[in-house]
Amino acid sequence: MAPPVKNAVRAAAAPTEEWSSQPEVTAAHPPKNAAGDGDRRPISTVLIIIAMQTEALPLVNKFHLSEDIDGSLFPKGVPWVRYHGIYKELHINLVWTGKDSILVEFSKFGCVLAGVDSIGTISASLVSYASIQALKPDLIINAGTAGGFKAKGACVADVYLVSNVAFHDRRIPIHVIFFCVNYLYGIGARQTFSTPNLIDELNLKVGKLSTGDSLDMSPQDEVLILANDAVVKDMEGAAVAYVADLLSVPAIFIKAVTNTVDGQKSIAEEFLQNLIAVCTTLAQTVSQVVDFISGKCLSEL
Amino acid sequence: MAPPVKNAVRAAAAPTEEWSSQPEVTAAHPPKNAAGDGDRRPISTVLIIIAMQTEALPLVNKFHLSEDIDGSLFPKGVPWVRYHGIYKELHINLVWTGKDSILVEFSKFGCVLAGVDSIGTISASLVSYASIQALKPDLIINAGTAGGFKAKGACVADVYLVSNVAFHDRRIPIHVIFFCVNYLYGIGARQTFSTPNLIDELNLKVGKLSTGDSLDMSPQDEVLILANDAVVKDMEGAAVAYVADLLSVPAIFIKAVTNTVDGQKSIAEEFLQNLIAVCTTLAQTVSQVVDFISGKCLSEL
Repeated sequence: MAPPVKNAVRAAAAPTEEWSSQPEVTAAHPPKNAAGDGDRRPISTVLIIIAMQTEALPLVNKFHLSEDIDGSLFPKGVPWVRYHGIYKELHINLVWTGKDSILVEFSKFGCVLAGVDSIGTISASLVSYASIQALKPDLIINAGTAGGFKAKGACVADVYLVSNVAFHDRRIPIHVIFFCVNYLYGIGARQTFSTPNLIDELNLKVGKLSTGDSLDMSPQDEVLILANDAVVKDMEGAAVAYVADLLSVPAIFIKAVTNTVDGQKSIAEEFLQNLIAVCTTLAQTVSQVVDFISGKCLSEL
Repeated sequence: MAPPVKNAVRAAAAPTEEWSSQPEVTAAHPPKNAAGDGDRRPISTVLIIIAMQTEALPLVNKFHLSEDIDGSLFPKGVPWVRYHGIYKELHINLVWTGKDSILVEFSKFGCVLAGVDSIGTISASLVSYASIQALKPDLIINAGTAGGFKAKGACVADVYLVSNVAFHDRRIPIHVIFFCVNYLYGIGARQTFSTPNLIDELNLKVGKLSTGDSLDMSPQDEVLILANDAVVKDMEGAAVAYVADLLSVPAIFIKAVTNTVDGQKSIAEEFLQNLIAVCTTLAQTVSQVVDFISGKCLSEL
């Protein structure tokens, strides 16, 4: 059976009242068959893209990966870290976006250099681009933690395979001619690479992901997250999907819920409270996904 | 006189009430001397990064630049367009982020493929990274249009040289230990490369820039824009600065005001109304800046 075409058309009607006078349109990025001829040979090189060290380390240990010490894969100056190794005949490359150095000065006590995970869409897109160029992977797995929407059935520790991605913090309401291509570009809605057999085999929950550069959720974000019909919300997914799509590499997204976004608890507190345990769960699922992938071609996923 | 060190410490106290219980801290990215030894030889290669075709074309014409037809500088699939040529003994490379293709389906009338400028931080950071890697420029000029704050003295058609950049839509309120490095990473405040002679010679207005992925301004954006003390607001600058900083390339930012953000008019309407005329003004200023740069080394700017 031929695999479903990647990036097939997705309805993305503009959600706000402002657009009610527009003609009824749907829009999408034109389909590209990312898999190409590669879908008939076994998957060889897998690129796992991760934004936080806490998310990365359980997988580094699970797959017995080694850190690139010479750092020759990436240019001098970038914080990105690559771990690699062979696991079940797959070349596994796990790239973590690394730590940003922040100099914090205390007015009375001197200063301290603190490292913070390079989270968010810019680092994720840069590391995706550089890693694809350097490694030419057959498949990308973007794995990470996410906020979940209780109203859509998400609970802490649930792990989702993402069917669609979109952004919720890129509002570009420019009306050129009579429809809103700038607006739709901002939303950047995309279907992810379709993996029906993987979903069936692992009995994974499937849902839509909305991406933005903030951990919290403003009222404006909420409007677009609802319009994107998202069950999970993260800070990298749609950016990785954008780059993977530009460079025609199939990408799948595995997101584990650390906190609810629409619950009573503080997002940041619940996130920190559950982070380590949920990262263990995330690593178990990614490991099962990699086990399933081993020996298969793209069209068998 | 030695040039001021790039990325010197900038006070970036957390702005909201939420942080009032924190110790008084300032933070920044540790200084890097981006210019290095290159500050004592004449500038040779200039990379101009632009997000909109309307902003790019007046400069392509002014400098008599040729478009890369074979596209060999960038990988297949990306929309980025490079124009290049020699102007007053400078190797000028103007890279425009290109058009994103959006398939718009009209429910009754069929469909049309529309192109839209690849604006925003992700495209800007990707094209900055790829262009720096390919061209090894001595200096980056990020030129573009921006919204201006009337309350800070900005008027339509004003052109600013940017002293500092920061983001206003990356809210990461995670308290780790007792200070907020995640928050400060999100804001990403940086000083730009210092050019006191250029400012004096061209009598340029100088101000701070705040960057976000939306054309409009939400109340949450406004809080951080005010905290960033911005006089102009764009959709690319801080992303270009982030990448330039990672790769230690000096970068300057020239932003021309198409609309006021805190005025009575619709941002999108005023933006479209003034875009073409302001892009002509922008090109004149960039041209004067390039004329000034010609024959000089970084330490003379």
